[in-house]
Amino acid sequence: MTPVIPEVVINRLPLYARALATLAAAGDTVVSSQTLGEQLDVTPAQIRKDLSYFGRFGKQGRGYNVGDLRDQLRAILGLDRTWSVCVVGIGRLGQAILEYDGFTQQGFNTIAAFDEAPEVAGSTIQGIKVQSMSNLENYLAGETVDIAVVAVPAEQAQAVVDRLVKSGVQAILNYAPISAHVPEGVSIRQIDPVVMMQGMTYYLKDLNPDNK
Amino acid sequence: MTPVIPEVVINRLPLYARALATLAAAGDTVVSSQTLGEQLDVTPAQIRKDLSYFGRFGKQGRGYNVGDLRDQLRAILGLDRTWSVCVVGIGRLGQAILEYDGFTQQGFNTIAAFDEAPEVAGSTIQGIKVQSMSNLENYLAGETVDIAVVAVPAEQAQAVVDRLVKSGVQAILNYAPISAHVPEGVSIRQIDPVVMMQGMTYYLKDLNPDNK
Repeated sequence: MTPVIPEVVINRLPLYARALATLAAAGDTVVSSQTLGEQLDVTPAQIRKDLSYFGRFGKQGRGYNVGDLRDQLRAILGLDRTWSVCVVGIGRLGQAILEYDGFTQQGFNTIAAFDEAPEVAGSTIQGIKVQSMSNLENYLAGETVDIAVVAVPAEQAQAVVDRLVKSGVQAILNYAPISAHVPEGVSIRQIDPVVMMQGMTYYLKDLNPDNK
Repeated sequence: MTPVIPEVVINRLPLYARALATLAAAGDTVVSSQTLGEQLDVTPAQIRKDLSYFGRFGKQGRGYNVGDLRDQLRAILGLDRTWSVCVVGIGRLGQAILEYDGFTQQGFNTIAAFDEAPEVAGSTIQGIKVQSMSNLENYLAGETVDIAVVAVPAEQAQAVVDRLVKSGVQAILNYAPISAHVPEGVSIRQIDPVVMMQGMTYYLKDLNPDNK
């Protein structure tokens, strides 16, 4: 594998894989970069360029084989196996995350949950016993957790991220509304609906000059 | 305002505004692009370039005035006013969104909620009475909704987005796991934790060659 693939390219691959899975489920066997691009609001040239990092897919003028490309993308991304997940912070959001079945369906299995509140630690949600935060390092020393989901309040998020990283977690999905830091070699993604809304109001403001 | 500012630049501005607000709350009055960049994992050159789209901020070698820059960014993004929000799809996720107080704190006021299930429509959550989906167009004809949050299942999401757009909604935050389409002039952002996880497993796979 070429080592210098831009992260934005990697981040688009799951969208390609998902669109291909939908096409395959609908019985389509061949798709052009044009059609795939229209479904994803990406230009055909972008799709071809993104895929070119990983080898040659499809034949000139014949499009891509839907099932093959889906399988190859899934293998490239490591989606052909399961990954273990822990959730840290079991407030309202953390509970909703534990109850969400979309992760398991896609091979992300939540195996542990942590919360510092004594009234939460010890409870069982979706079959997962919530552990005390004080047990985090001990647990991670004995179990491999591939991805940690952080759903603690903003003030605690960086400290929690630091503890996870120190315990060897290499991928973090952060729901706390801060720009959390990780050392090189650790992946982090931020989910921040407020920031996303704030990126749209700029356009609303321009579109609606009477909205003052 | 220059009309050709890349969307990626606009999307970074809320992060700058938030970091500046945190600095201001801590009593800082001046910040360099270096320090701001370190907090956000953005290069100082990127910050200076992003801000240059909107005029001149800060003085050579003296850094930015924290409060001034925060206020100017908030004005640019339209964060110095409130925006009205409706939530469509009041399942577990939609309920969690209605119960989340982070939107209101940032000026995003949820004024309406919709669900097609008869047992949900009619209930009241956080003071908001959930309306039937059949009332969506009628409601939007009489009330201005700036941003719609879509939290319906994947199969229904595009149809819901279409109805919202047809009723004049110009910004959509989509939690459904599909790449939904909107016409030009309408903003959409996708929140998809599974896709974010899938963009990280690529790196996990490379980092852990024994994880097959």
